[in-house]
Amino acid sequence: MPAHLLAVPLLVLVSLTARGLESPPTDLEEARRLLERATTEGTAYDHVASLTTEVGPRPAGSAGDKAAVAWAERRLRSLGIKEVRLQPVQVPHWVRGTIETRVTSPFPQPLVAAALGGSIGTPEEGVEAEVVAFPTLEALREASRDQVEGRIVYIGQRARRDATWAGYGEAVAKRVAGPSVASGLGARALLIRSVGTSRSRLPHTGTLSYSVNAPKIPAAALANPDADLLERMLASGQAVTVFLKMTSRDLPYETSANVIAELPGSDLAEEIVLIGAHLDSWDLGTGAIDDGAGVAIVMEVAARLAALGRPLRRTLRVVLFASEEYTLAGATAYSRLPADELDRHVLAMEADAGAGAAVRLQSLLPEAGLGFADTVAELLRPLGIERGGNAAGGGPDIRPLVARGIPVLTLEQDVSAYLDAHHSPDDNLDKVDRVTLERVTAAYLATVYLALQAEGEFGRMPERGP
Amino acid sequence: MPAHLLAVPLLVLVSLTARGLESPPTDLEEARRLLERATTEGTAYDHVASLTTEVGPRPAGSAGDKAAVAWAERRLRSLGIKEVRLQPVQVPHWVRGTIETRVTSPFPQPLVAAALGGSIGTPEEGVEAEVVAFPTLEALREASRDQVEGRIVYIGQRARRDATWAGYGEAVAKRVAGPSVASGLGARALLIRSVGTSRSRLPHTGTLSYSVNAPKIPAAALANPDADLLERMLASGQAVTVFLKMTSRDLPYETSANVIAELPGSDLAEEIVLIGAHLDSWDLGTGAIDDGAGVAIVMEVAARLAALGRPLRRTLRVVLFASEEYTLAGATAYSRLPADELDRHVLAMEADAGAGAAVRLQSLLPEAGLGFADTVAELLRPLGIERGGNAAGGGPDIRPLVARGIPVLTLEQDVSAYLDAHHSPDDNLDKVDRVTLERVTAAYLATVYLALQAEGEFGRMPERGP
Repeated sequence: MPAHLLAVPLLVLVSLTARGLESPPTDLEEARRLLERATTEGTAYDHVASLTTEVGPRPAGSAGDKAAVAWAERRLRSLGIKEVRLQPVQVPHWVRGTIETRVTSPFPQPLVAAALGGSIGTPEEGVEAEVVAFPTLEALREASRDQVEGRIVYIGQRARRDATWAGYGEAVAKRVAGPSVASGLGARALLIRSVGTSRSRLPHTGTLSYSVNAPKIPAAALANPDADLLERMLASGQAVTVFLKMTSRDLPYETSANVIAELPGSDLAEEIVLIGAHLDSWDLGTGAIDDGAGVAIVMEVAARLAALGRPLRRTLRVVLFASEEYTLAGATAYSRLPADELDRHVLAMEADAGAGAAVRLQSLLPEAGLGFADTVAELLRPLGIERGGNAAGGGPDIRPLVARGIPVLTLEQDVSAYLDAHHSPDDNLDKVDRVTLERVTAAYLATVYLALQAEGEFGRMPERGP
Repeated sequence: MPAHLLAVPLLVLVSLTARGLESPPTDLEEARRLLERATTEGTAYDHVASLTTEVGPRPAGSAGDKAAVAWAERRLRSLGIKEVRLQPVQVPHWVRGTIETRVTSPFPQPLVAAALGGSIGTPEEGVEAEVVAFPTLEALREASRDQVEGRIVYIGQRARRDATWAGYGEAVAKRVAGPSVASGLGARALLIRSVGTSRSRLPHTGTLSYSVNAPKIPAAALANPDADLLERMLASGQAVTVFLKMTSRDLPYETSANVIAELPGSDLAEEIVLIGAHLDSWDLGTGAIDDGAGVAIVMEVAARLAALGRPLRRTLRVVLFASEEYTLAGATAYSRLPADELDRHVLAMEADAGAGAAVRLQSLLPEAGLGFADTVAELLRPLGIERGGNAAGGGPDIRPLVARGIPVLTLEQDVSAYLDAHHSPDDNLDKVDRVTLERVTAAYLATVYLALQAEGEFGRMPERGP
């Protein structure tokens, strides 16, 4: 999940529809049964095991990306979902290339780093310059050109471990905006401490966003132990010089796809409940928690509802978005579907928060729908899930839908371990706990079931613009 | 610490001297005072911080190796130790080069692996072959040539987490002997699951030992998550093909050194109490726990005894051995000192067990000395250290001294976290806990002090041959 999409939306609690939503007792009973069975018999873990084993890394535009699309289509069909189609998406194709990072003075030794996603490479001969360090992006913003020009900027801010996204939100701006802020002051390159909480000697990548107002410079993240090392050298008071050579670059766009699967509804078939996740991953790991877990959750929900063998009232649409990690190309393509199709969406949910336990049901619903959210939360309480507020941000891929006023439910997960592996080579299947993942999936399943069956109208939130 | 040296020696408890060892009450009092002050005011952590920051990786024959020797000599002098000299050691100079490991069929994706220390490289075009898997080295030994010939052998045995060396001892034979056992059956290359307990996507290197009876083949260790991945692919029942390309090779020998520091004794100056550690490290990390911690411990002991400002009875000799990790060249060179100099050693201790808490005092002493070891253990009890048996193996570097019958004391440490980072890129300063390291050092300090001052003779164990 890229950071600039984490901002909590302005709270607008004004209902645009007077009619509320209700769940008949028989539906509540069925939802409870689905919940119970999915917690004990769920197979979401098998989907993420299959994806990480049979596909592995799948950054936008890569061979893995294409393999993932084929895998998803095949697997959805094998799960009994008949309507599966591909929406073609032109995706950027950035390649990491190689990286060499080392301190050349006063204490020569190698550093472990990874290019930030989207970074340009260095000149062929590399860049060697003195390091100037800043504790935060804000401190860099306040620096003078004299301090920075001709140097390699280092930003040391740590990602704070937190059960919510707050820890990520605080630290990630240095990654997204840091390169252009540094470049605007004349820096030759940017190094950041990884936006990650582990002590492994593994760097955490993630997208940067170059501003059009500053030249592009190469940017990379140091593994936490290497950031420690660099900081100890800087603390010696001596000038520290670093050499950086990267061959990262953008290749021509490739065609990927949003994978779209549907379970058509019955009397309210025109109304679409969307559950999304993203199929792409960064290249360093195998994308188990980001976002194999989300893919597994939404696939399993669809499979279990398909297995009921009867249409539910509304249409369930599963979307596995392309290229979330780099430019959100899949979400953008989806938002360009015909307006009348988009307007048929009545609710959107996105699973892109890893494999930690679900802890809270946040909504973004018109006032008349709040009682429905309360009902769902009450049903989920035995799983340790509380009712949150009405300020759900949605995920990055459904942001364009949120901007149109489409209501959202979010099952917030405990992300306190997420940043240990997020965007790093450590994002692998061993970071997924089977029991926990099946419980999260069960919570999604019950929620989606009730949304598909609810009496009444979801209504709309006021449009908020992108 | 290489594995083939972990074997517990045959217990020979026959005393070769009738006179025992005793510690006068004033010495016990001084030892207690030293212990107390070192736990609260110790600076061992600063030595390992300095070594990892200012030198970093220092495999035998590398520029880091030479920098480490210069660092050690400089630092020992700065700690007030006047007698510091270098014993030149011809060391092997193996270089890792690059590695590319990937599954090519049925599910193409990269694998993270590291060449085993001493491995040859592959042919320039790499090796591509079907993988044949064995759970243990023993299972491979029982395989037929038909099963193995022309294939890449994989051995999956896991290192078991254990507070003693047992977990390492069980698993490491596959690394040391595996390549030649596989080659003897016609294998083209060997892959092993890393001998390490962490789930990081980081491989654990370590020396192999080629037999003269089989052709050399390239050998590498997979990171644990990659071993999991390969095993999941193998479990699919399909043939799994792997491509491996490595440029590892031996370069000509280089001159390194054992760094030897002494605090001359007084009335028993001819008797040498040796405390050793090894200065070299593997190249992937910065050698904080293996063996920066040991280097720090023995340096700190020497510094604190030097700070007493008066000679103690026996001579303390600190030896920082060269090239422990690869061929034990430093230990071998040391064992070739003149016999009369070696015979002056009355006790040897080696610190090469990381930075975990000291938990047990093992001895290898003639019977008449056992009371002395009991006295030392009693003094150390407040630190949570128990008296072990009389079966100390010593460490790899003092093994030649042990073979000569020179008595040993070993402060066994809790190594339950050691294999998380051992020989991997994760062996960095963040794995060292300052308080724990100072306590281990204090235990060494009190033990060494009492050994230097004890009344009586240490005697000799029966010679055991190398």
